[in-house]
Amino acid sequence: MSLDFGPAVALSCRECGARYDLGPSFACLECFGPLEVAYSFGSVSRADIEAGPANIWRYRSLLPVPVDVASKQNMNPGWTKLVKADNLGKALGIRDLHVKDDSGNPTHSFKDRVVAIAVEAARNFGFHTLSCSSTGNLAGAVTAAAARAGLDACVFIPADLEQAKIAMARVFGGKLVGIQGTYDEVNRFCSELIGDPLGDKWGFVNVNLRPYYAEGSKTLAYEIAEQLGWRLPDQIIIPVASGSQLTKIDKGFKELIALGLVEDTPYKIFGAQALGCSPVSTAFKAGHDVVQPVKPDTIAKSLAIGNPADGPYVLDIARRTGGAVEDVTDAEVVSAIKLLASTEGVFAETAGGVTVGVLKKLVDTGQLDPSLTTVVLNTGDGLKTLDAIADDATPTAVIRPSLDAFRAAV
Amino acid sequence: MSLDFGPAVALSCRECGARYDLGPSFACLECFGPLEVAYSFGSVSRADIEAGPANIWRYRSLLPVPVDVASKQNMNPGWTKLVKADNLGKALGIRDLHVKDDSGNPTHSFKDRVVAIAVEAARNFGFHTLSCSSTGNLAGAVTAAAARAGLDACVFIPADLEQAKIAMARVFGGKLVGIQGTYDEVNRFCSELIGDPLGDKWGFVNVNLRPYYAEGSKTLAYEIAEQLGWRLPDQIIIPVASGSQLTKIDKGFKELIALGLVEDTPYKIFGAQALGCSPVSTAFKAGHDVVQPVKPDTIAKSLAIGNPADGPYVLDIARRTGGAVEDVTDAEVVSAIKLLASTEGVFAETAGGVTVGVLKKLVDTGQLDPSLTTVVLNTGDGLKTLDAIADDATPTAVIRPSLDAFRAAV
Repeated sequence: MSLDFGPAVALSCRECGARYDLGPSFACLECFGPLEVAYSFGSVSRADIEAGPANIWRYRSLLPVPVDVASKQNMNPGWTKLVKADNLGKALGIRDLHVKDDSGNPTHSFKDRVVAIAVEAARNFGFHTLSCSSTGNLAGAVTAAAARAGLDACVFIPADLEQAKIAMARVFGGKLVGIQGTYDEVNRFCSELIGDPLGDKWGFVNVNLRPYYAEGSKTLAYEIAEQLGWRLPDQIIIPVASGSQLTKIDKGFKELIALGLVEDTPYKIFGAQALGCSPVSTAFKAGHDVVQPVKPDTIAKSLAIGNPADGPYVLDIARRTGGAVEDVTDAEVVSAIKLLASTEGVFAETAGGVTVGVLKKLVDTGQLDPSLTTVVLNTGDGLKTLDAIADDATPTAVIRPSLDAFRAAV
Repeated sequence: MSLDFGPAVALSCRECGARYDLGPSFACLECFGPLEVAYSFGSVSRADIEAGPANIWRYRSLLPVPVDVASKQNMNPGWTKLVKADNLGKALGIRDLHVKDDSGNPTHSFKDRVVAIAVEAARNFGFHTLSCSSTGNLAGAVTAAAARAGLDACVFIPADLEQAKIAMARVFGGKLVGIQGTYDEVNRFCSELIGDPLGDKWGFVNVNLRPYYAEGSKTLAYEIAEQLGWRLPDQIIIPVASGSQLTKIDKGFKELIALGLVEDTPYKIFGAQALGCSPVSTAFKAGHDVVQPVKPDTIAKSLAIGNPADGPYVLDIARRTGGAVEDVTDAEVVSAIKLLASTEGVFAETAGGVTVGVLKKLVDTGQLDPSLTTVVLNTGDGLKTLDAIADDATPTAVIRPSLDAFRAAV
């Protein structure tokens, strides 16, 4: 098997630093720590990147993908809008606020980024079936990408997901299996399946392809910096489910500094959780280094991971950068969705309500400096979580088509 | 009032050629024909355009907007993906097929393009309230753009629309009025309202701002040509609701030729309707020049305009270019949605099912040359018309989280 992972040279253990050949592995044989991709970057210039396509492949020289990746059949996600959010900033008292709106991706969540990298790994390793455990967005991203790449798909979700996410995970074809249980149970089941002959030849994007997959989140960091004019934000608010996205955005910022693509300016990273599934914010506030698993109960189902694999790393990063991990109630999530929509025309899914709600709370509690450049992430689409706003999702009036009826109504 | 419409110099009547000053007018005082924007283009180069932003404002020198439009608060739609659809092409027997996927716009339909131009007209004319009659997508696009531009909104829809479209039209704020009637009745009501003191100071994007608004559809033509490497497609399939989009794509192609931005190669334009609302395809097939209004009954609600204003122009263009206007049944619409999703990972709304369904029918009936470069439009998002695929929008299996249960299920 001849592998082509571009600038990636090895897998290395995040805990003990042990190195391994690039392969479909995810845990260190020495210490069981998580493996991540190690690189040998050549020289990379802003001009090279700017000359690339309007999707994540403009950063192909910083990702574990072949140099010709842009010419293959994939979903070409990324290069989503960084919305200058002056209206929302005014409402919250923040001077220079931006919303990174990942609802613009092909299946309308940031998951298209990570899956695109996992597809290249699956091709490298010769896997013909793509799989995953998912809280919903990932299932749609995997089945869509598999359809386009000509791969089979078999994906696993909690059976009680939002209707729109189930529909979207099914329409692209492939097998969609509902599991009677929480996401954490779905995830455990997938770990068992990978050790069974039924699943041991499959590419589970967030299990045996996880080291590659997770790198896709770095592109959020690259895009934000480039879209700010090649500089880092001072403060960024990121949703925390498994915690992987937050840790990879930090990794992305550090790479840009190391490569001389941005100035080495300080940044604070804030994690955002829903109170109904807030194991990481609970640990942060208590000053703990370990995260106690919880049983999720929140409308923010895409963040409903009760046992977040990267929770301890999130705590490290929030503390090291001078940020924090905060949480908001489901009612605050709904208010924040409406606030973002009515100020900026961005319709976020519940996870976006969590980040915007946490942003407001960070300002209100003095944890965030409103005079600094601040970016808040919306990682998904309001059309997938309509239940959250169902109480107000009706016309303000219903009338006959006559001026008299309209006059009476207004 | 000092107006700034960039290269636009006048309104001119499409029927009799009478010219008028730029203003909030839409019908010729001489012959009641529709008014459209007339320009005096300077020299425009490919390089100028390519140096512009990744949205419709890269074509600002071809649109009725101020030169600094990109720095204003608007939704920055456009520059959506032209997906090279080799899988779908193989399934249909077409050699070089592309899907222009406008679900990537901010509110996930092509309507963001036209509304963005209308917002600039509203600013020019000093309107503080944006309004429209809508089959759904437009209402969401208008309320979102109004929120971001700091304008009020009051929009009108048939009361029986899809839930997702109602929710999206409401979440951005503004007034959402459901009318007990068809879209054509909503539209007539808006025409009355504009003559009443209640509405005569409003900017109705598709009534008194229609000449400007409609120009936004030209950007689909510009993008397709640029994304094909500055050449025109040989064949293009466009949905027909009012018919405005199809006529403006033709206008856009002709402008590119006149400006020397593309070679003058022949192209065939095909219109696509759902059989349950097919007044234009009926007229085309009967060889008529006039379009008999119908009462719509189709799942493709975004195309359910029974009395299409630009129907006769669609007939002209289809005949002049050697194209056609075809229709498909609702069942064919659903099949086409699934075919597109399972081959290309693109989840279209029912209007996209109509165009892809018509594409298949055109090939099957020999009306389309499968050896030529062909573009098919998807103008909206499957998440807004979930009812169309509801019968299959469930997991393929629901099981306990155990290998035994999975073995039994597969």
